[in-house]
Amino acid sequence: MAKVVYILNGPNLNLLGKRQPEIYGSKTLDDVCRLCEIMGSEVGVEIVFRQSNAEHELIDWIHEAREKADGIIINPAAYSHTSIAILDALNTFDAPVVEVHISNIHKREDFRHHSYVSGRADAVLAGCGVDGYLLAVRHLADLLRSKA
Amino acid sequence: MAKVVYILNGPNLNLLGKRQPEIYGSKTLDDVCRLCEIMGSEVGVEIVFRQSNAEHELIDWIHEAREKADGIIINPAAYSHTSIAILDALNTFDAPVVEVHISNIHKREDFRHHSYVSGRADAVLAGCGVDGYLLAVRHLADLLRSKA
Amino acid sequence: MAKVVYILNGPNLNLLGKRQPEIYGSKTLDDVCRLCEIMGSEVGVEIVFRQSNAEHELIDWIHEAREKADGIIINPAAYSHTSIAILDALNTFDAPVVEVHISNIHKREDFRHHSYVSGRADAVLAGCGVDGYLLAVRHLADLLRSKA
Amino acid sequence: MAKVVYILNGPNLNLLGKRQPEIYGSKTLDDVCRLCEIMGSEVGVEIVFRQSNAEHELIDWIHEAREKADGIIINPAAYSHTSIAILDALNTFDAPVVEVHISNIHKREDFRHHSYVSGRADAVLAGCGVDGYLLAVRHLADLLRSKA
Amino acid sequence: MAKVVYILNGPNLNLLGKRQPEIYGSKTLDDVCRLCEIMGSEVGVEIVFRQSNAEHELIDWIHEAREKADGIIINPAAYSHTSIAILDALNTFDAPVVEVHISNIHKREDFRHHSYVSGRADAVLAGCGVDGYLLAVRHLADLLRSKA
Amino acid sequence: MAKVVYILNGPNLNLLGKRQPEIYGSKTLDDVCRLCEIMGSEVGVEIVFRQSNAEHELIDWIHEAREKADGIIINPAAYSHTSIAILDALNTFDAPVVEVHISNIHKREDFRHHSYVSGRADAVLAGCGVDGYLLAVRHLADLLRSKA
Amino acid sequence: MAKVVYILNGPNLNLLGKRQPEIYGSKTLDDVCRLCEIMGSEVGVEIVFRQSNAEHELIDWIHEAREKADGIIINPAAYSHTSIAILDALNTFDAPVVEVHISNIHKREDFRHHSYVSGRADAVLAGCGVDGYLLAVRHLADLLRSKA
Amino acid sequence: MAKVVYILNGPNLNLLGKRQPEIYGSKTLDDVCRLCEIMGSEVGVEIVFRQSNAEHELIDWIHEAREKADGIIINPAAYSHTSIAILDALNTFDAPVVEVHISNIHKREDFRHHSYVSGRADAVLAGCGVDGYLLAVRHLADLLRSKA
Amino acid sequence: MAKVVYILNGPNLNLLGKRQPEIYGSKTLDDVCRLCEIMGSEVGVEIVFRQSNAEHELIDWIHEAREKADGIIINPAAYSHTSIAILDALNTFDAPVVEVHISNIHKREDFRHHSYVSGRADAVLAGCGVDGYLLAVRHLADLLRSKA
Amino acid sequence: MAKVVYILNGPNLNLLGKRQPEIYGSKTLDDVCRLCEIMGSEVGVEIVFRQSNAEHELIDWIHEAREKADGIIINPAAYSHTSIAILDALNTFDAPVVEVHISNIHKREDFRHHSYVSGRADAVLAGCGVDGYLLAVRHLADLLRSKA
Amino acid sequence: MAKVVYILNGPNLNLLGKRQPEIYGSKTLDDVCRLCEIMGSEVGVEIVFRQSNAEHELIDWIHEAREKADGIIINPAAYSHTSIAILDALNTFDAPVVEVHISNIHKREDFRHHSYVSGRADAVLAGCGVDGYLLAVRHLADLLRSKA
Amino acid sequence: MAKVVYILNGPNLNLLGKRQPEIYGSKTLDDVCRLCEIMGSEVGVEIVFRQSNAEHELIDWIHEAREKADGIIINPAAYSHTSIAILDALNTFDAPVVEVHISNIHKREDFRHHSYVSGRADAVLAGCGVDGYLLAVRHLADLLRSKA
Repeated sequence: MAKVVYILNGPNLNLLGKRQPEIYGSKTLDDVCRLCEIMGSEVGVEIVFRQSNAEHELIDWIHEAREKADGIIINPAAYSHTSIAILDALNTFDAPVVEVHISNIHKREDFRHHSYVSGRADAVLAGCGVDGYLLAVRHLADLLRSKA
Repeated sequence: MAKVVYILNGPNLNLLGKRQPEIYGSKTLDDVCRLCEIMGSEVGVEIVFRQSNAEHELIDWIHEAREKADGIIINPAAYSHTSIAILDALNTFDAPVVEVHISNIHKREDFRHHSYVSGRADAVLAGCGVDGYLLAVRHLADLLRSKA
Repeated sequence: MAKVVYILNGPNLNLLGKRQPEIYGSKTLDDVCRLCEIMGSEVGVEIVFRQSNAEHELIDWIHEAREKADGIIINPAAYSHTSIAILDALNTFDAPVVEVHISNIHKREDFRHHSYVSGRADAVLAGCGVDGYLLAVRHLADLLRSKA
Repeated sequence: MAKVVYILNGPNLNLLGKRQPEIYGSKTLDDVCRLCEIMGSEVGVEIVFRQSNAEHELIDWIHEAREKADGIIINPAAYSHTSIAILDALNTFDAPVVEVHISNIHKREDFRHHSYVSGRADAVLAGCGVDGYLLAVRHLADLLRSKA
Repeated sequence: MAKVVYILNGPNLNLLGKRQPEIYGSKTLDDVCRLCEIMGSEVGVEIVFRQSNAEHELIDWIHEAREKADGIIINPAAYSHTSIAILDALNTFDAPVVEVHISNIHKREDFRHHSYVSGRADAVLAGCGVDGYLLAVRHLADLLRSKA
Repeated sequence: MAKVVYILNGPNLNLLGKRQPEIYGSKTLDDVCRLCEIMGSEVGVEIVFRQSNAEHELIDWIHEAREKADGIIINPAAYSHTSIAILDALNTFDAPVVEVHISNIHKREDFRHHSYVSGRADAVLAGCGVDGYLLAVRHLADLLRSKA
Repeated sequence: MAKVVYILNGPNLNLLGKRQPEIYGSKTLDDVCRLCEIMGSEVGVEIVFRQSNAEHELIDWIHEAREKADGIIINPAAYSHTSIAILDALNTFDAPVVEVHISNIHKREDFRHHSYVSGRADAVLAGCGVDGYLLAVRHLADLLRSKA
Repeated sequence: MAKVVYILNGPNLNLLGKRQPEIYGSKTLDDVCRLCEIMGSEVGVEIVFRQSNAEHELIDWIHEAREKADGIIINPAAYSHTSIAILDALNTFDAPVVEVHISNIHKREDFRHHSYVSGRADAVLAGCGVDGYLLAVRHLADLLRSKA
Repeated sequence: MAKVVYILNGPNLNLLGKRQPEIYGSKTLDDVCRLCEIMGSEVGVEIVFRQSNAEHELIDWIHEAREKADGIIINPAAYSHTSIAILDALNTFDAPVVEVHISNIHKREDFRHHSYVSGRADAVLAGCGVDGYLLAVRHLADLLRSKA
Repeated sequence: MAKVVYILNGPNLNLLGKRQPEIYGSKTLDDVCRLCEIMGSEVGVEIVFRQSNAEHELIDWIHEAREKADGIIINPAAYSHTSIAILDALNTFDAPVVEVHISNIHKREDFRHHSYVSGRADAVLAGCGVDGYLLAVRHLADLLRSKA
Repeated sequence: MAKVVYILNGPNLNLLGKRQPEIYGSKTLDDVCRLCEIMGSEVGVEIVFRQSNAEHELIDWIHEAREKADGIIINPAAYSHTSIAILDALNTFDAPVVEVHISNIHKREDFRHHSYVSGRADAVLAGCGVDGYLLAVRHLADLLRSKA
Repeated sequence: MAKVVYILNGPNLNLLGKRQPEIYGSKTLDDVCRLCEIMGSEVGVEIVFRQSNAEHELIDWIHEAREKADGIIINPAAYSHTSIAILDALNTFDAPVVEVHISNIHKREDFRHHSYVSGRADAVLAGCGVDGYLLAVRHLADLLRSKA
């Protein structure tokens, strides 16, 4: 049976491709979703792709993933830096977690250098643009395969 | 007429008893609710017991408590450390507030040592496990009785 | 066609005039809304006035304002100090932003001295009480006129 | 009898309109003075408008204002961040004080984020450009009227 | 055989009830001792109740407790914040430790927010007034019963 | 009846005059005691002069002073910088407290710049050498006279 | 020939006795001057007493004192905490320097706890009220006598 | 003509696979080299793979890459956290740079959380194990293709 | 026409050569002035040489230099470390600025290590003694020549 | 005549060998005493070996050592990190001081990394277990011999 | 077969005995080598003694020691405070490590108080002069014997 | 006999004139060498000019200079901020040291503001571009002449 990977996106990512293209590129979140699904079918994992501006919805989805997912890819966006609640939710999840940031957060304002989520994530990919999602899917598929 | 006490629980506590039992024990939040109700009837206070992963819902309930409750017991979980908005909500509440943490937050990561809510709470109980709720109910009942 | 200004209010401001009047005065948020509408019609801007205790709702409204508003006046209340997500939402908005605080946050607790929103706002008004909203409407109307 | 408002300007503001117009605009301090006087006559307060590069002169004028003024509007410029002596002078003044900054100091270098004067000011307006002075006059006139 | 609980009190607590009653209440330490003994007999533990202004005496008593006590309740008062030696003594004690503070130390001066003892205590109760001792006795009795 | 002033000396002051004379001068603590008694009789206060290396003994004497003294002069020596317990003891004392340091602690190592006791003392004298004791007696006598 | 002592007073002290009497008392600076002169004649030193709100004037007077004075008593007021220039001026002065603060600066805001001048002063007296000046004159006279 | 990618490895990586396999896995650096070459030929880039324990040698190779390489993948290991010289060398390199860490440095000691190299890198991959190198090659090949 | 260079000297430099010769040497400020004039005539620039203990006078001279000078050499002395107002004045000056310190400020007290002026200066020379002025004149003459 | 060395042990060391043997080993303090005496007789120094949980007793013994000892070996245990009073006592002692810690304090909690005593000790030995005492005796004997 | 101990010396130690003898004594590194060899033969370990100014050479030797040595004594000199790479190399070494400093680094500049190497070393000896090497050899020989 | 001056250049300076000309200008290090030699012959000192990317090579050259040079001019580049080993090497050198930085390091990133080398250098020149080397040669020649 195919492995399931939740890809969760945090606040303001619904505007991807519609704002600051010099930083975030011109692909929309729908584009990213489609690319991830293509990559998913290529590496044999099923993708569940979601976005929310609400911290609690991200928490709810992580709780849901405890039952339904074999791995989580999360781009917590601004909540990376402020949400201990999302960290705690991820701490209740036993399978691999990969954190993705479209831009290299270490080159931006100081308050973006620290991510609570990195304290739980198995891997962190930053600055690969939209390609970071695809690398994450690929890496997670490898991880799940090697554990199977 | 019986005094009313709101017991409000923050993010991820819906998973109590289902995750990390070595830290949080094996009782579920429903168990805690029932135990609090038993204790409430023993010490003569009516319990309203709720949980939410959403910061704004906790705020709304605190606002509601302004009209309906004689005291609040709150386990803000991760929001203890990050939510000034919950602190501000509690600042609008004139009756006693008791803060409860199941684990001893002072023995965990540095970022769990500070709680904004403690700046408003009348009493803080940490590390008593689920028993902390019952001690809080008991203490609040005493407080309300001594003020009556 | 009249310019449109969104006035967005953060957590606990629904209680304005009902709590701590020595700090926040006795006018309710409805009163403030009406006064802003009067001032708006005086200076020729249409007012959309909203309040939410939920961070994500404020983010959603800022996204909505990208399409529908010529300027934003925001009193982020407690979220000023903790929400990078609201800052990021405002960073996607290209027209003027004015930040308002009813009290002088620089005279209160240390954790109220820093506002993430100030890093994006064009202007910041603090400590003018409810009058701060009216000054902001007036200032924004001037700004929009001078750009027209 | 008309209320009197002192408007005090700190170091380098004598060059207003002659330097860095992209930050400070193209109006000179004389222009600002005239605009404040017009606004003053509109809202019924008499304006005394001064500028000095000397910390002690600003202190002397604040002392003078104790006898002669019903309110102070001060743009302490660079002294905002370094002068406890001006703070102490303002602490001896019992009527309202409004602090004005032409630019939004919170978007500039870190050392401009803290103002000693804000610890005493009743209201702080930053980033409204020269309009900030006029808003301050208007606000102060309202304050004085409501107290009368 | 009845379990034995040492209740150790730190510096200045000999003046309890005789100083700053608005903070510490009007009960004396003798009153507290008697109430603890009553509670102890109610929940089936024997109470050994002591107070000292001397850090080394508290250390000696903790060493003594290693042989004679099944649990320690300690209100280290000012030594909470400065004594690593008491922490080290408690680290040599294998049974449960409950830390009690009469006032909510988190609402007082910054230097009272950190307690070395909390790094060892199993539970921490602050701000319950004298009732904190009784809750601690009750909690410790429960703990000891559940371990027996 | 003559006013009574306790003069309490902290750790290592028993060696005064016998060590580091370039810092502390060549007078012994007995010399200081005698000089204080002479000054006391001159300004009409009775002197009780003591020294201890033990923190708890200083605390005990402050407690004793609550009953027997009209003022305290304290040179807490090294405990100035580390003892919250002595601060708390002084907080239970309602009459004037003068803190004395023989050397100017602000010119020495950083860890000597902060004194917990200064947070309670009415006056602080540092760097006057042994003369600081005499100035303190004189000042305290004046204070007591002006209150009488 | 009589020794000469300069007593220099910093910003806002010209208002002594006219503002915040609960902190600074009701004596004016003229009163203090007269009291110092009386004390000076009693202990045999000639007093030169001055006040300025200007940092540079205080520096000039310290330079002047290099030629004309045998000691300096200085209450640098707000400049204590901000003026390295006054510290440098005092560093060029070879005779004794006593720093005086009317209030106990260690009990006030954090930014008043550090004084650059204390890094040079031989003695520091804080919190003795106006009496601090007299104690300083007395102490300086003793110092000068013992050196003569 | 095939694009050339330098893969540079910092201190102690010569021991990869021979030490702490629970952290770094069991593949040796030779294994990694071979895997990168295979991946390189798959995605059409030529790999130059090197390791040095010497900071200056890494600098020299980066200088060499200015002439010979179209991109750099660097695992600076311990030098990430301490070498401004390597950062400066990378600042002289105009083509893409990808930083790789085998472990998730954000979950390890505090001093491993900051990397000077991240201030220059276009992308940062941490915690993917040896797979991180392959993802980096793949990503860099994509980048170079999209720029071609 | 000869280029004009203002050489501005800050507080206490009027005492140069008269105090602490082991640090500052034995040349007076007049000597320095004469040496600068000789060097100026050698390299073809006209020197305007001034000193003030007053921050505002230095600011006024910088403003004056905007009209009359082609470059500024400034030794801000103690004001280097405390004056944002002088920094702001220099920010209004468009031609080259060279900062000079007679001693190596980096080897002295910590508070002398940071200079606000260095944030604007084109070049900074410290520790060359009086020769630093001459090197600065020479360097500035070269700069002006290369720009001409 | 044989040289005398005081070996002073701080709080909780009376429990050596009876607690946490994985850290402190299984030798008791009596064992250590005996081993030191054997080593002492081997290298020709007389050993005085003491332990106290009381800070003041350690101070008293250091004072006593001024008269009776040619060197001090001290394991201040927890007081290393908190006692300026012990530091001050050692500052009155003119002969060599060696500080010993059984465990390597630099590998433990942050608050154990700094020792006030190290600011006075001639040598510091940490992490050698009980052998550290013997090395210290040997080293001190060498030092005393080389000075004789 | 004799145990082998590597003694590694960091930068500038080749000048030992030739510079600052008041700090480092007059013995050269060759002298130290010979003394260590004598001590080694006395306690039955073979000594390999080396010095390098190059960080990478020290790393290489530590790697070499993985195969050839039963223990390492290292005086990392300046690299103690800056080299995470040497720490990482030592982390790959499974046998005992003793860190030696000739001077007591805790009495010198602040930046010498922290050593990365201490986070790995089993024991740390500072301030024993050249004798520290001999004590280290002796201690290491004991350790190795007790493990054999 | 001519005085000898070593001019030592740190990492990445071999690329001078070939990278970031807007910061470092267009002269190569060879150009600088030639200009220094010309200046050297003009002021009568012999120049030895070297560059290395290796920290240890710089250390070795400083050691060599102990025998062969009368002064050192050093541009430590990135090692300024990280190398205590170079500082220690310079501490073994008894003749004058001048530190040169081509750019004004105080206007760049925070981590470039502190230089360990400045704690030893007699003079520091920053921001003079390549001219800084020539000023340094000139200054050093003067220094050596005045000492001869």
